Amino acid sequence: MTPETHMEKTPGTFELIGMDGRARAGILHTAHGSIETPIFMPVGTVGSVKALAPDDIHAIGAQIILGNTYHLYLRPGDDLVARRGGLHEFMKWDRPILTDSGGFQAFSLSSLNKMSADGVEFRSHIDGSRHMFTPEKVVSIQRNLGSDIMMPLDVCLGYGASREDAAKAVRRTTEWAARCRAAHPVGSPGLLFGIVQGCTYPELREASARQLMDIGFEGYSIGGLAVGEPKNLMMKNLRALDPVLPQEKPRYLMGVGTPLDILHAIETGVDMFDCVLPTRNARNGTLYTSAGKVNIKRREYAEDDSPLDPKCSCYTCRTFTKAYLRHLYVSKELLAFRLNSIHNLTYFLDMVRGARRAILEGRYAEFKAGYEAMYPEEDLLFDAPEC
Amino acid sequence: MTPETHMEKTPGTFELIGMDGRARAGILHTAHGSIETPIFMPVGTVGSVKALAPDDIHAIGAQIILGNTYHLYLRPGDDLVARRGGLHEFMKWDRPILTDSGGFQAFSLSSLNKMSADGVEFRSHIDGSRHMFTPEKVVSIQRNLGSDIMMPLDVCLGYGASREDAAKAVRRTTEWAARCRAAHPVGSPGLLFGIVQGCTYPELREASARQLMDIGFEGYSIGGLAVGEPKNLMMKNLRALDPVLPQEKPRYLMGVGTPLDILHAIETGVDMFDCVLPTRNARNGTLYTSAGKVNIKRREYAEDDSPLDPKCSCYTCRTFTKAYLRHLYVSKELLAFRLNSIHNLTYFLDMVRGARRAILEGRYAEFKAGYEAMYPEEDLLFDAPEC
Repeated sequence: MTPETHMEKTPGTFELIGMDGRARAGILHTAHGSIETPIFMPVGTVGSVKALAPDDIHAIGAQIILGNTYHLYLRPGDDLVARRGGLHEFMKWDRPILTDSGGFQAFSLSSLNKMSADGVEFRSHIDGSRHMFTPEKVVSIQRNLGSDIMMPLDVCLGYGASREDAAKAVRRTTEWAARCRAAHPVGSPGLLFGIVQGCTYPELREASARQLMDIGFEGYSIGGLAVGEPKNLMMKNLRALDPVLPQEKPRYLMGVGTPLDILHAIETGVDMFDCVLPTRNARNGTLYTSAGKVNIKRREYAEDDSPLDPKCSCYTCRTFTKAYLRHLYVSKELLAFRLNSIHNLTYFLDMVRGARRAILEGRYAEFKAGYEAMYPEEDLLFDAPEC
Repeated sequence: MTPETHMEKTPGTFELIGMDGRARAGILHTAHGSIETPIFMPVGTVGSVKALAPDDIHAIGAQIILGNTYHLYLRPGDDLVARRGGLHEFMKWDRPILTDSGGFQAFSLSSLNKMSADGVEFRSHIDGSRHMFTPEKVVSIQRNLGSDIMMPLDVCLGYGASREDAAKAVRRTTEWAARCRAAHPVGSPGLLFGIVQGCTYPELREASARQLMDIGFEGYSIGGLAVGEPKNLMMKNLRALDPVLPQEKPRYLMGVGTPLDILHAIETGVDMFDCVLPTRNARNGTLYTSAGKVNIKRREYAEDDSPLDPKCSCYTCRTFTKAYLRHLYVSKELLAFRLNSIHNLTYFLDMVRGARRAILEGRYAEFKAGYEAMYPEEDLLFDAPEC
């Protein structure tokens, strides 16, 4: 479960150590150690990966986790976290942490948000208090958190935005990215990625990427996908970006996704992923296994004494039966959340680790095909007619 | 944290290895290993100690846990558990389990319950279905669960019952205990305790105990206390029972209690305790420490970088600060329930382990005085005028 040991290099160094087609295997160095890519990052919204302690997160083989800037800014507050020595020290996680910019939540969670050229004004979803995120402010918050990989404030539109609106969003995203870079020059503690926007318009995506590359970032995030668009549109845009983005920098597809989403995106050269899917589904009783998805609530598991996934080596699968997991879930026992989360995250981390090995051994297509066979319904989405 | 290693003896053997005043230190042998008394038993209502996995329960030093017959009978069902190989195998806990009779919950949780000479008829609090607990039925359920220490069906009245009602309850409790003993003769797998009733009438308590001793049980439970009566009445009844109950059998005070309740009861010769207090309070943010109770929600802990209890060696105290525990609690993070439960149970288990050591070293009064100084308000309850 432990990652390979690497010579530590300057934070921001990305070593591309293998390719299979366009799929990449690499090593990204940060101030809290190196990350083997492709990687999946468990989401630790408000300073804990829901239901899991740091020893659980280590045990499942996570190499990096994600913290949400919006949530941590509101509670407990980034100043308070800074006075504790940063998020690593506060939550006792000693490996890398990536933080988002908070902009997405400021738009989606808070009421009465208002965007101007200077940033986003919003009301807290907790107590209604007024706040303002500017490009400089979100950098300052993420520095307070001690983030290893920071995101600039960006404008993320939903699916269906007009080309004109999408072009405007790209322009503002670039302006804000430049302001974030100015507030956090190369060599500052913590890497800063640029976020490519452009909705589902490949030529806007390309323009966005080139503008960000002119500014120069330690890596490139791809935002505003998996927001409701058909899967083939997402893939089309990822394929358009692949030849544009620099090979020597890591690429992060924000908020994605299902196992197949991730495997398809890896095939277009993406290195990093995060999503609440494994932990949220764990809490809803939907579990990923080597035989496909299992809804642990179902009566058919009431007397099933087999492990959830005989091929999985997580604590849950090593220890308990489906019958017990079903009982915990239908009885609404707190332990269900932890055991299910341990398993689902192990599944996602095993998958990206397997993908990395397959890339290094030149058999990625075959590896991916195995997963496609497991999720036949989901795969149909990739063949949907373009719209 | 590991208990001493003892030569395993016939289940039911109780070795009284030391006394200090009336306080007792012993070893109770069961089919799943021995228990060092005095002992506190974490409550695992429906097949898990809430928020904790078996490895957590081992780590906190628990030697025995409690399962609730009423809950497990209704869901997942004792037959289903029996087909899984019993509760130990189902929940993967390989040390002793004590089960209650289910009678208390049949009265208190279910609606439309009706008692007759034959038992208790009740409706499930889950789906309203009708059920009947007879003395024979609750023995059969507990045998299906594979319980190490079983309880007979009893009649438990609240505080304030008349002497006449209390005397009737004692008579029926004795009749039912005899039927349970007949259904589960000495030597059957699993120990059977008798439950002493009699409300707050010492002479009824004594009669109840003598009737049960005539039938003969592997241990004696004391039920129907800590149901709202003043603390000094509870103590008065415990003191009345101490010289009556056989020295060579374990004594279990059901559902008790606060740290001081437990320490006072140990002083009257009680050996075993269970209570939801540490786990329920953990989930409510009330934590027990060597400096008294801590309400972790309080603002004063927001920037407190000290451990919850520097004298505690649990995972929570070894790893996290009060500031982080407060943040998890006010953010309603699931991890809070687990970390707080680990700590509170460790506190109770450390306390009874300390009590045992103090008894063996002849300094129990001094040991107890240390705790009394810590809970001055609670202690006043023991001086309340008798009513």
